[in-house]
Amino acid sequence: MPINVSFLQDLLTTVAEQGRQYLPSALVGPQREDIGGLARALLSGRGEASGVAIARELLDRYRGLGPDDRKVFFRIIAEDFKPDPDAVKAAAAAFLEAPGEATMLQLRDAVESPRQEFFRRLNLAPGATAEIVAMRRDLFRILKGEPGFNAVDDDMAHLFASWFNRGFLVLRRIDWQTPAVILEKIIRYEAVHEIQGWEDLRRRLEPADRRCFAFFHPSLIDEPLIFVEVALTRDVPGHIQDLIGGPAPAASEPRPAPSTAVFYSISNCQEGLRGISFGNFLIKQVVEELAREQPQLKTFVTLSPVPTFARWLDRAVADEGARIVTDADRLALQMLSDPGWLDDPEEAEALKPTLLALAAHYFLQARSHDNRPIDPVARFHLGNGARLERINWLGDVSEKGLREGHGLMVNYLYELKDIERNHEAYANDGEVVASRGVRALLRSPPRTGKSKLDPKALVAKQSD
Amino acid sequence: MPINVSFLQDLLTTVAEQGRQYLPSALVGPQREDIGGLARALLSGRGEASGVAIARELLDRYRGLGPDDRKVFFRIIAEDFKPDPDAVKAAAAAFLEAPGEATMLQLRDAVESPRQEFFRRLNLAPGATAEIVAMRRDLFRILKGEPGFNAVDDDMAHLFASWFNRGFLVLRRIDWQTPAVILEKIIRYEAVHEIQGWEDLRRRLEPADRRCFAFFHPSLIDEPLIFVEVALTRDVPGHIQDLIGGPAPAASEPRPAPSTAVFYSISNCQEGLRGISFGNFLIKQVVEELAREQPQLKTFVTLSPVPTFARWLDRAVADEGARIVTDADRLALQMLSDPGWLDDPEEAEALKPTLLALAAHYFLQARSHDNRPIDPVARFHLGNGARLERINWLGDVSEKGLREGHGLMVNYLYELKDIERNHEAYANDGEVVASRGVRALLRSPPRTGKSKLDPKALVAKQSD
Amino acid sequence: MPINVSFLQDLLTTVAEQGRQYLPSALVGPQREDIGGLARALLSGRGEASGVAIARELLDRYRGLGPDDRKVFFRIIAEDFKPDPDAVKAAAAAFLEAPGEATMLQLRDAVESPRQEFFRRLNLAPGATAEIVAMRRDLFRILKGEPGFNAVDDDMAHLFASWFNRGFLVLRRIDWQTPAVILEKIIRYEAVHEIQGWEDLRRRLEPADRRCFAFFHPSLIDEPLIFVEVALTRDVPGHIQDLIGGPAPAASEPRPAPSTAVFYSISNCQEGLRGISFGNFLIKQVVEELAREQPQLKTFVTLSPVPTFARWLDRAVADEGARIVTDADRLALQMLSDPGWLDDPEEAEALKPTLLALAAHYFLQARSHDNRPIDPVARFHLGNGARLERINWLGDVSEKGLREGHGLMVNYLYELKDIERNHEAYANDGEVVASRGVRALLRSPPRTGKSKLDPKALVAKQSD
Amino acid sequence: MPINVSFLQDLLTTVAEQGRQYLPSALVGPQREDIGGLARALLSGRGEASGVAIARELLDRYRGLGPDDRKVFFRIIAEDFKPDPDAVKAAAAAFLEAPGEATMLQLRDAVESPRQEFFRRLNLAPGATAEIVAMRRDLFRILKGEPGFNAVDDDMAHLFASWFNRGFLVLRRIDWQTPAVILEKIIRYEAVHEIQGWEDLRRRLEPADRRCFAFFHPSLIDEPLIFVEVALTRDVPGHIQDLIGGPAPAASEPRPAPSTAVFYSISNCQEGLRGISFGNFLIKQVVEELAREQPQLKTFVTLSPVPTFARWLDRAVADEGARIVTDADRLALQMLSDPGWLDDPEEAEALKPTLLALAAHYFLQARSHDNRPIDPVARFHLGNGARLERINWLGDVSEKGLREGHGLMVNYLYELKDIERNHEAYANDGEVVASRGVRALLRSPPRTGKSKLDPKALVAKQSD
Repeated sequence: MPINVSFLQDLLTTVAEQGRQYLPSALVGPQREDIGGLARALLSGRGEASGVAIARELLDRYRGLGPDDRKVFFRIIAEDFKPDPDAVKAAAAAFLEAPGEATMLQLRDAVESPRQEFFRRLNLAPGATAEIVAMRRDLFRILKGEPGFNAVDDDMAHLFASWFNRGFLVLRRIDWQTPAVILEKIIRYEAVHEIQGWEDLRRRLEPADRRCFAFFHPSLIDEPLIFVEVALTRDVPGHIQDLIGGPAPAASEPRPAPSTAVFYSISNCQEGLRGISFGNFLIKQVVEELAREQPQLKTFVTLSPVPTFARWLDRAVADEGARIVTDADRLALQMLSDPGWLDDPEEAEALKPTLLALAAHYFLQARSHDNRPIDPVARFHLGNGARLERINWLGDVSEKGLREGHGLMVNYLYELKDIERNHEAYANDGEVVASRGVRALLRSPPRTGKSKLDPKALVAKQSD
Repeated sequence: MPINVSFLQDLLTTVAEQGRQYLPSALVGPQREDIGGLARALLSGRGEASGVAIARELLDRYRGLGPDDRKVFFRIIAEDFKPDPDAVKAAAAAFLEAPGEATMLQLRDAVESPRQEFFRRLNLAPGATAEIVAMRRDLFRILKGEPGFNAVDDDMAHLFASWFNRGFLVLRRIDWQTPAVILEKIIRYEAVHEIQGWEDLRRRLEPADRRCFAFFHPSLIDEPLIFVEVALTRDVPGHIQDLIGGPAPAASEPRPAPSTAVFYSISNCQEGLRGISFGNFLIKQVVEELAREQPQLKTFVTLSPVPTFARWLDRAVADEGARIVTDADRLALQMLSDPGWLDDPEEAEALKPTLLALAAHYFLQARSHDNRPIDPVARFHLGNGARLERINWLGDVSEKGLREGHGLMVNYLYELKDIERNHEAYANDGEVVASRGVRALLRSPPRTGKSKLDPKALVAKQSD
Repeated sequence: MPINVSFLQDLLTTVAEQGRQYLPSALVGPQREDIGGLARALLSGRGEASGVAIARELLDRYRGLGPDDRKVFFRIIAEDFKPDPDAVKAAAAAFLEAPGEATMLQLRDAVESPRQEFFRRLNLAPGATAEIVAMRRDLFRILKGEPGFNAVDDDMAHLFASWFNRGFLVLRRIDWQTPAVILEKIIRYEAVHEIQGWEDLRRRLEPADRRCFAFFHPSLIDEPLIFVEVALTRDVPGHIQDLIGGPAPAASEPRPAPSTAVFYSISNCQEGLRGISFGNFLIKQVVEELAREQPQLKTFVTLSPVPTFARWLDRAVADEGARIVTDADRLALQMLSDPGWLDDPEEAEALKPTLLALAAHYFLQARSHDNRPIDPVARFHLGNGARLERINWLGDVSEKGLREGHGLMVNYLYELKDIERNHEAYANDGEVVASRGVRALLRSPPRTGKSKLDPKALVAKQSD
Repeated sequence: MPINVSFLQDLLTTVAEQGRQYLPSALVGPQREDIGGLARALLSGRGEASGVAIARELLDRYRGLGPDDRKVFFRIIAEDFKPDPDAVKAAAAAFLEAPGEATMLQLRDAVESPRQEFFRRLNLAPGATAEIVAMRRDLFRILKGEPGFNAVDDDMAHLFASWFNRGFLVLRRIDWQTPAVILEKIIRYEAVHEIQGWEDLRRRLEPADRRCFAFFHPSLIDEPLIFVEVALTRDVPGHIQDLIGGPAPAASEPRPAPSTAVFYSISNCQEGLRGISFGNFLIKQVVEELAREQPQLKTFVTLSPVPTFARWLDRAVADEGARIVTDADRLALQMLSDPGWLDDPEEAEALKPTLLALAAHYFLQARSHDNRPIDPVARFHLGNGARLERINWLGDVSEKGLREGHGLMVNYLYELKDIERNHEAYANDGEVVASRGVRALLRSPPRTGKSKLDPKALVAKQSD
């Protein structure tokens, strides 16, 4: 460990302490200046002289506002701090008349909304970053659908993409030695498989075969941005109930070294950072961390839900013209209305081929209007360059798992050497790279002609 | 100290360690891909899948390049990664035809140069931020004056303004307990009064009446961005040689509590961050820090050089039509050509009224083409809202002080309650707020009519 | 904060990492050497050459032993590593013959048991300190009552008194930002008022009016040694149920600044450190910390249990000759056998004067065989220099509080200016310094003649 | 890195801050109590109640004393705080009458001097440890030779052996990122090869082939206890001037991985800890650290001075009866009086065999009165289990090297697998384990009969 890190550690002590200090309010002018006045002052020459104090005052004022007053505030931001249309017109005309570097820069300046500078100055206040991120969450809730929403949201997203650039994020292991204030946020933010209190949390963090990692930003010191939960296993698991909920293994019991890292839950934490992508980086960096810590790990795979399969299937069944659902399918699927099908091995066995075949279709052939798969989790992992590796029958028999995915779970495989190729196949052609096992579940081979499936994928190793 | 800071301290240990890890080079593709190819790959879909690795590879490649190859690289950046002129034309025309939120956003997207995304992706690599800042320094040295320079520089400056937003900076005291790797940079970067090695540095940092503070960025852990040196005194000093160069006072000697904090040197450290303003924030935050630590401090003042006075005076003397330089002045100023004038009390006494009167003119009445004072140090402090408090005869008798400012030094006073008003007077009207003592040095009262001097300033407390 | 602390912070990172490293086992010699052989090797010349490795091996071996084998180990320590009786005899005789500095030093060397050096060498192993402390806990459980127990225990206690000298301890605030691994130990070690899980813990740590502090030792990084829980209040509370168990106050609710710090629970954590006194130092340092943080705090007081009152009372009632229990008392005390007395205001009211008078006697006049009060909590706080301030009726109506103290609780007052005098009165004369209010509860004034009560105490400020 | 370290890091911040806080002086009693009175108060009941404050006051008072007053203080410690001779006599007699565990413990208590408790209580004050260590340095300077010195010194040494047990020490790398306040102490404390200012220091710390490690104690945060300087090389070096003083190698220059770690300087820093042994542990732990960092390192060796060779040789030459110095030797050695012999290759060549043979005798056969080698550096490394590997001609041609060792330097080899055996041979029999090369320098083979040389050593691998 380089020593100068410790110098930085002191730095950050100072940062945190700065959060408590405010400039004398005397600097801010009339005490009861309204928030719109403060916003305008921040962007004015006064903001240049005493921006820190004005920003602090504005944020304090904002915190005390109810939803209606916040709405008024956002309207000011939307309306008064947008680019001047006349200036943009003039600059656009000038560029059209004489295209070149100078007129381009002028046009760029004209279209950049003063909101960007507004938020940059707002961030002068100690501790402001977290509050500005929370403002965007408010924006979603308060202004959505109103005129100006898109433009304000776009400006905030644009700024956050710079501020929360992955180069500024810090990967941090979360374990039983993490401060409670962070751990309770892990409990709260877990979005995939709910954590049932502190003992369940400990079950996910403390055993030697578990890992959890989160990204943090130096200016949001007690707020994880995104986190992933990992189990180290001997095989690729197909059932989430094998990983969570059970008792912890006895610590002393000697066990063989794991070969597989299973990413079984990944949760975004900050609604205000929606659209700023962290998951891709998080998974890949955690793969690196784990590979460094335990070089014998060979397989990096997810165990993922299929959150929109049931909904899609309902529609397909209801759609009389959908050729993919046969009459035999409809008959079999009626069993799903019997809440006891799961406990009746015969019923379950009878449903299995129907559901697996339709799930293979759902992943491999069904398409959203943007010519991508329907399943949002599939879109995320395929976009990252993972491969659809296995569809697991009765993978999640929780109420939620049955309701959303008829109990199915999916493994996506991250193979470092294929990630770039997989990503490009998906990004360029919308191709779903899948194992032979998954493709074999399809009733009919993919249509030939301009195949959705890259021929190269056909020779990919089958794992199922 | 809040404990979760210590959690963050761990975070940053991790950050620093990340700097050492690179993705397997297998991810990068052909080993000897040229830097232009890497740059294009980074912006392509491949950059989405394995941006971290490509960015790392590109930075490593860059480090190995000589000036000529770097020039080639910058030309690629300038030429290939600029906004598409046709797309801008189309978007400009569309906006002119139907001005509105949607066409505005499209126009904004069209004019944003791909360079911004390029540098954001480059920053994915661990430790990249410092290298990207250094790239801009190279840009100044290599591409300046060439076509495309302005646009590339503008994009980098724009991005850095977001990245190095004051909200992300950390104020840090520099003292004798700071790591040597930082201290040697303080020696190297000191730009006002050269530090003569480690003992001189210790003289400036260790005594109980000295302070030094710097801004750091969490991603540049051993590089100060800007720092200021402070002496705590009983009076407003007029002579730099009273503050530096002498022996340190004996530690045991009891001394009265200081009333005055003197900012006697402020230095920017990162050429690549030129134009990103830190000094204003630094001074104000240090004022706050000191006021908190030592509440009895009442006066916050600089002791500053006058770096362009001698050059201005030469021109004024040479300009026969300049009414401000009288024949008597010219006669007196001839003494300056005698290198011994300083040691001859009579000569010095004879020069004093002439130089002080001309210096008052230089600060208060002479104007640059932008209607601001000529002196760059004055522009900085007046722009921050400080007041020109005192002009000091024989304030700096070093070779440099005599050569540049004929030995004069200036105190600028930071009075918190006046900062906003002073700043606005300067920003809006170019007014130089000065003490009565400084104004009294002028030979003729400021012209009436549209006075450069705010009447309010006339009643300001005189300190001299 | 002094920077070199951060240097030390790095130091300690290194310490913790050292705990993971072991010397090559090749250094240790025959792999299956028994623990007695290792112990002897550690004390021999081999221990000088490779003590770290032998100590590590011995501790690993010890960890794997069952109680019987550990007993064997302790017998070796007791028997083989005691001072050589013949050498002591010779040195004693030599001293008696020629008393002086030299013979004194020889005698001292002869009586120092080799166990001391044994444990010092055992502590060479990384992470050993915690294991050696745990060994003493085993000693209590395994060897107690056997020959040699006293001598071994005495040696360990003697060594620990040096190792855990208060000058090496670190006071640390425990709050909601403390790592979970520490917090769960707070739950586990709380010995006065049981903590009912994580939400109860949060209730005690997180509200703005709560504090918790612990002592740590740098070599036992995740083990608190002792901790105290504090509530900040407006008055001296008399009822523990007002402080714990209720819902947390709303954070936003503005409240007057507290005037009183109430120490309502103090728990030792390490059985192996029994007899090494920390509580006195902890309370006094926490008083200092709180006085610095909140200068308006004026009163530092405990709310303490009376753990042996009920037992003492039973005996006093049973002792027919005890004049202190009157027949009327016996009649009243019969109500205690009715489990519903607490809910019957009349019964409770009838009991109150009896129990308070007897409690006053219990504290002020009853004496243990060492002429000190019977109550162990009273002995602790009076020994620290506190004053018995108030006896609270129905102070703890939990099952435990009723069973042990008939519901009574006591406030001990720590008044800095009186601590030294109070301590000496107690230490020299066994005097119980008490408020006038407590003394007024006695049925008869303290006997005159050689009073147990210092006359000075009679003029002490009354608080009740 | 385990997170709870960071919790500890906070701990230590607190420790350091504690150093600044003192109890209200009101606690201490009469303001101008003399230091003897304070010392007695600390050991009395008052010390139990307010030991922290009294200890602080005493240390402050001590700091203000001149040597004479300090002498008075030490006499009080020596005389008034020694064991009570009558009590010791009684306990000695009681033990002789009835030897057993109980009388042994009583005797032990009687002979333990109250000084031990005095210094333990003195250590209650924040920051006291460093001041108590410094007191022992004063003791050496002020009381040495006086009655009572031995006893006081012995008590302090005994206590320090517990306090500074190796288990509490922290190994820390010292490099260019270490705080300046530590680095200047490295410059000051270097005792073997003087460091010529900051640039020389940097030369020893910064290059990739250099290491420096120190032991620290958590309560002496900016004071190294002992440090060692290491060079990583390809061969076992014989000349110190090859390692220090030259220019640093260019960083970019690629070099083969080193195979050898050379410990070329080891310096104790705290005179007050004289006799508390750290060097043995330091070298062995640094060997481990380096072996972990660079597994290709195969050889761990010193390059050490021969500080008493010249003095010994003078005596041997002067001793007419010393058979080891032949007449031819005496003739050759006369050349040493010519200051230019070093520059005259012929003279040097002529001297070489004589000096090497006599040096071999000095190391292998000459003995001190305790039957150990004469050379203190040899005693240290041989006692650690190292082997005398090579005697280097013209190893140190500095003024000091020539004056003390006639330019010779020595390599001691640390071979982990032999350390224990070497140590025992040395510790039990005074045997000097040496390479065949060194032994071959002897003029006559070691005497047979009861050989000083273990026959096993004769088959040791020869390295020269």
